[in-house]
Amino acid sequence: MDASHSSLPHVVVIGGGFAGLWCTRALAREAVRITLIDRTNHHLFQPLLYQVATAGLSSPDIAAPLRHILRRQRNVEVRLGEVVGIDSVRRSVQLADGTSVAYDYLLVASGATHSYFGRDEWARVAPGLKTLDDALAIRRRVLTAFERAESASSEDERDAWLSFVIVGGGPTGVELAGTLAEIARHTLKREFRHIDPARAAVRLIEAGPRVLASFPESLSEKARAQLASLGVTVLTGAPVKAIDADGVEVGETRIASKTVLWAAGVAASALGAELARAFSVETDRAGRVKVKPDLSVDVESRVYVAGDLAHIADGDRMVPGVAPAAKQMGAHVANAIRASLRSARPQPFQYRDFGNLATIGRLAAIVDLRGLKFSGPLAWAFWLLAHVFFLIGFRNRLVVMLNWAWSYWTYQRSARIILGENSPPAARDS
Amino acid sequence: MDASHSSLPHVVVIGGGFAGLWCTRALAREAVRITLIDRTNHHLFQPLLYQVATAGLSSPDIAAPLRHILRRQRNVEVRLGEVVGIDSVRRSVQLADGTSVAYDYLLVASGATHSYFGRDEWARVAPGLKTLDDALAIRRRVLTAFERAESASSEDERDAWLSFVIVGGGPTGVELAGTLAEIARHTLKREFRHIDPARAAVRLIEAGPRVLASFPESLSEKARAQLASLGVTVLTGAPVKAIDADGVEVGETRIASKTVLWAAGVAASALGAELARAFSVETDRAGRVKVKPDLSVDVESRVYVAGDLAHIADGDRMVPGVAPAAKQMGAHVANAIRASLRSARPQPFQYRDFGNLATIGRLAAIVDLRGLKFSGPLAWAFWLLAHVFFLIGFRNRLVVMLNWAWSYWTYQRSARIILGENSPPAARDS
Repeated sequence: MDASHSSLPHVVVIGGGFAGLWCTRALAREAVRITLIDRTNHHLFQPLLYQVATAGLSSPDIAAPLRHILRRQRNVEVRLGEVVGIDSVRRSVQLADGTSVAYDYLLVASGATHSYFGRDEWARVAPGLKTLDDALAIRRRVLTAFERAESASSEDERDAWLSFVIVGGGPTGVELAGTLAEIARHTLKREFRHIDPARAAVRLIEAGPRVLASFPESLSEKARAQLASLGVTVLTGAPVKAIDADGVEVGETRIASKTVLWAAGVAASALGAELARAFSVETDRAGRVKVKPDLSVDVESRVYVAGDLAHIADGDRMVPGVAPAAKQMGAHVANAIRASLRSARPQPFQYRDFGNLATIGRLAAIVDLRGLKFSGPLAWAFWLLAHVFFLIGFRNRLVVMLNWAWSYWTYQRSARIILGENSPPAARDS
Repeated sequence: MDASHSSLPHVVVIGGGFAGLWCTRALAREAVRITLIDRTNHHLFQPLLYQVATAGLSSPDIAAPLRHILRRQRNVEVRLGEVVGIDSVRRSVQLADGTSVAYDYLLVASGATHSYFGRDEWARVAPGLKTLDDALAIRRRVLTAFERAESASSEDERDAWLSFVIVGGGPTGVELAGTLAEIARHTLKREFRHIDPARAAVRLIEAGPRVLASFPESLSEKARAQLASLGVTVLTGAPVKAIDADGVEVGETRIASKTVLWAAGVAASALGAELARAFSVETDRAGRVKVKPDLSVDVESRVYVAGDLAHIADGDRMVPGVAPAAKQMGAHVANAIRASLRSARPQPFQYRDFGNLATIGRLAAIVDLRGLKFSGPLAWAFWLLAHVFFLIGFRNRLVVMLNWAWSYWTYQRSARIILGENSPPAARDS
């Protein structure tokens, strides 16, 4: 089969996210063989992951098997595995199963995970949202909290189960808070007998001075107002000091809560440190690799970094960790490899910023298209169309549209199924 | 709220399956208060569970939150909990969380689980299919097996990963075997580079003389032929002697296989033994409770059993453990409770047998409508319509129909997402 023509240059891509997948696809007609390695069997449409966490969509709606996406691209081999080391001398990557894979070109696009700023013990009590497994764990916690509130034996216990705290006022935190408020106020209406879910307290806590800080101040203000009208209490300038199973400490205040979700910190994949070790490149505070203008770790190495793992300047700020940037970087690395194969000079990466969107909840979003700013229902419709349009695969788009049309009219959420409740404790808390 | 009018007679229903839910709904206009207790938050449409296991449907397609189904029935309170004991003197049930719930009327409809005939160590290597968590575990195993085959380092290893054994030739075993063969031959086509998934061996092993033994012999023969044409090797008269992580022993033969699925034995819920202890009723070999003709454990107790947990005769055979029988029993118990409230005599339960269907795979099924027998594409269409029609909730029906239409034309299966692969080993094997 094509992919095993071992005389062709071997491109190894680590990570099947936006950067890795876009690079792989862009090399479809090149005389190379590609091995795409991922820890999971699927490409994940991360921008809609919060919808899985909040029971609006099912896992398969926003994920597709990498093998299936790439089945017709005969120069690619997909491999399920976890890369644990990179050997710059032998030019190979080591997998957790003990095997190694030699490369001529290497793209490391293993993305980011959440960071607890050195307080890793918070992970158990305040789960973050990066993978489908994370999303299902959050869904389980949120739905179970209402069940526990219903059967609580005291007022205090009930209130603690009806108290939700989201730490971090970035896009994920805002989406989670807005959607949770909608679930409490509308979705669960009439379903309980001892509690009124609409009385649930949803608090969004941000250490900095405003939510959605990557947007202009005026849009942050709009977002805050929209969150308030959905029923979310927004606390800014409020750094979290402690989190335990019964609540959070914010400044001098303690908030009782049985359900704390973490949307605050991002840390680059551990392969950033591995690249720093192997190629003597620098990393930034979040562990991202400071790449050369062509996205390589050094111009001779033929080793590249793209997506959330890459640190690269865009004028006086950094290229943001968003899907369009990752796709552009992936495509750029494909071009750099193509140039190298033809002994041409690599071009520097140029980020094309098409704008910035964030959704908040039903009919609530903000949009900043390079100066054209708007918010509210129109922004929400714009966000919806943009996201459904970019979903991979026609079937997914159709199902997601149908799901949303249904949810919109009925306020219902189709995926309100608690899974894993009979699993051992280790699984329940994973 | 209505459900807390404590002066009304209290009906406690254990289990939100077909029997429990149908009884609960039938009492909607009765002057009672009902507490429905279930270990999970959802009603599960069990006849399509194999589709979740084989990645054709998502969990929410075949499950709906009990609270949501019953939100408008104000005399019901839904409680998430596990019943661990029944006290016939105090007339109360004990929950795992230490609380207890008193009843005036009790319906125990906690169903069945799989039985390994005393070989519980087989559970780890040969998972069964009763819950959504089971289905996701089987899906993970099956999809992972093809991944492992692709990266196998020897022929023997590859063949063992491409060898699937299903133990038990009842409806679940036949559905799993037929669908697995379809996945191997069609769904995964072109997606791998080192293996040909179509060469996977799918074996269905049945200890008795024929598959689908609850059907007439001629239809069993048709089913066997349809399985063979889908690519399944059927072994009958083949009792399993041993199962381990590397294969099964059948008679004198050893079959190497990394993926063994269990569809052989059914055991009643542990509450059967609890009822036997508390009310001195008999249970059969599978642990089902031998109930009185009105489905009570004794006519005075006002304690009833329905669904897969009940053992009751239908002429010279037993009422089968199928969804229509469970619904009928649930509705009958509602009538018995209504009669008791009016001090009327209870009627004996009469099973109305509308026929028996089993699906085998694409365009393959058998139907036995009280003598009118047919098989093949027509039987498959009949099965499809009957199952989609009985799915709870309009949205589910629509999504499932769309999913199936899509799968039918493309051979694709939408839910091919391996979840939980980064969970701790305990979770992976749960």
